[in-house]
Amino acid sequence: MKDVRGFLIDLDGVLYVGDKAIKGARESIDLIRDRNYTFRFVSNTTRKCRNTIAEQLSSMGFDIPVEYIFTPPLAAVACLRNAGKRHCYLLTTGDVYRDFEQECFCDTGTMIDFVIIGDAGDKLTYDSLNTAFRHLMNGADLIALEKDRYWMAPGGLFLSAGPFVQALEFATGKTATIVGKPSKTFFELALRDMGLRADQVAMIGDDILTDIGGARTMGMQGILVRTGKYRKDAVDHAVVKPDCIIDSIAQLRDIL
Amino acid sequence: MKDVRGFLIDLDGVLYVGDKAIKGARESIDLIRDRNYTFRFVSNTTRKCRNTIAEQLSSMGFDIPVEYIFTPPLAAVACLRNAGKRHCYLLTTGDVYRDFEQECFCDTGTMIDFVIIGDAGDKLTYDSLNTAFRHLMNGADLIALEKDRYWMAPGGLFLSAGPFVQALEFATGKTATIVGKPSKTFFELALRDMGLRADQVAMIGDDILTDIGGARTMGMQGILVRTGKYRKDAVDHAVVKPDCIIDSIAQLRDIL
Repeated sequence: MKDVRGFLIDLDGVLYVGDKAIKGARESIDLIRDRNYTFRFVSNTTRKCRNTIAEQLSSMGFDIPVEYIFTPPLAAVACLRNAGKRHCYLLTTGDVYRDFEQECFCDTGTMIDFVIIGDAGDKLTYDSLNTAFRHLMNGADLIALEKDRYWMAPGGLFLSAGPFVQALEFATGKTATIVGKPSKTFFELALRDMGLRADQVAMIGDDILTDIGGARTMGMQGILVRTGKYRKDAVDHAVVKPDCIIDSIAQLRDIL
Repeated sequence: MKDVRGFLIDLDGVLYVGDKAIKGARESIDLIRDRNYTFRFVSNTTRKCRNTIAEQLSSMGFDIPVEYIFTPPLAAVACLRNAGKRHCYLLTTGDVYRDFEQECFCDTGTMIDFVIIGDAGDKLTYDSLNTAFRHLMNGADLIALEKDRYWMAPGGLFLSAGPFVQALEFATGKTATIVGKPSKTFFELALRDMGLRADQVAMIGDDILTDIGGARTMGMQGILVRTGKYRKDAVDHAVVKPDCIIDSIAQLRDIL
């Protein structure tokens, strides 16, 4: 870790699981702050806005500035900004729209520049998908906040955004720009905000593909934690290897 | 047409458009019946059961036995029969379930053999797609009544079954068996019922790909009509060429 000057840190599964902070996680954040490392948080959450995430972190005892948190909706807003466009149609749920409303016009007007789709749950209806489809056929581009297949909840397996992204791609012949981890756009957004090059940064995450694979592709180091969605067999079978594996983020002090 | 002993005939766009019979269509059906040709009807409709289609044909003045009508739901029932399975989960709309209920158990029990998806409109919800997805993950196979991208109605473009088939394929890693035109299974079902070989049959349709392309792949002759969805440029650009093009089915008498 000797050349590392900053950290990108995943949230769910690294700082907390469910609504419980991982033991020693707060102390590790304090430690990297005290030692003057730069750090930002990169999460693939597409069901909550940045402010809500900051509030939930605060309720778990983490003192993290809201502007340190990067999520796919923020990467999508950056895409719109770069394209000089402001009109979007959102297929999202929860309060994710709040990440967009400051800079964008959402779901208004007939000329839509971007259709933005996340893990939208019950908001994905035949009607809303038809509306998105028609905007795409009228010239809008498609941004996917993620393209996961499914996720596991206490009630069973649930379809994630991926299948619906695939559906709209098939219907329109367009290809979605994916803005969450492990996309380059997303990591670059956080790196630019840190003012560091990829080779000066280590990514700490629990997902061997999106976190570690994504980091390695960027030229960052990858630190895998054995908390959250970590599964030994997934790591053993993965082509990508982490630079280092630690039991949890609490162990960060041992490798700094 | 000298070796032709039977006809497969598309319905929508060939016998009628909207709820109006094509001029001379009834007389053409009478003619092939009088001349002792064998004939069956093959339609890709996935929103109506066979009985409803027969009733609608009757109301337009066509006297067609219900057992002469072949649709993708019937091909799906044949698939289940061939597999020796009876439990299916239907993602369909209208009264299509009536084609299944005589031989199959629909949407009951936890062990489902086949998920069957058609152009299901408002029946495609996040809940119903999750249920279908879980059955597939539990071992069910996927049958698609069609895999079209979209269709045009007075209200605009609407997503057809294809995008949702694609969504479930992406989520599960499974590949759907498509049972409508131009699938081999579907044409074979009608040919077997006629007791004729493909080279003894001509297909009459308005779709250069599903009707004419499908027929030619099977070894049947293809007669394209200039009614329904016929578009000259689509025919000019298509790789497949019809054996013969006629203005409408009324002109059949000229080529028999």
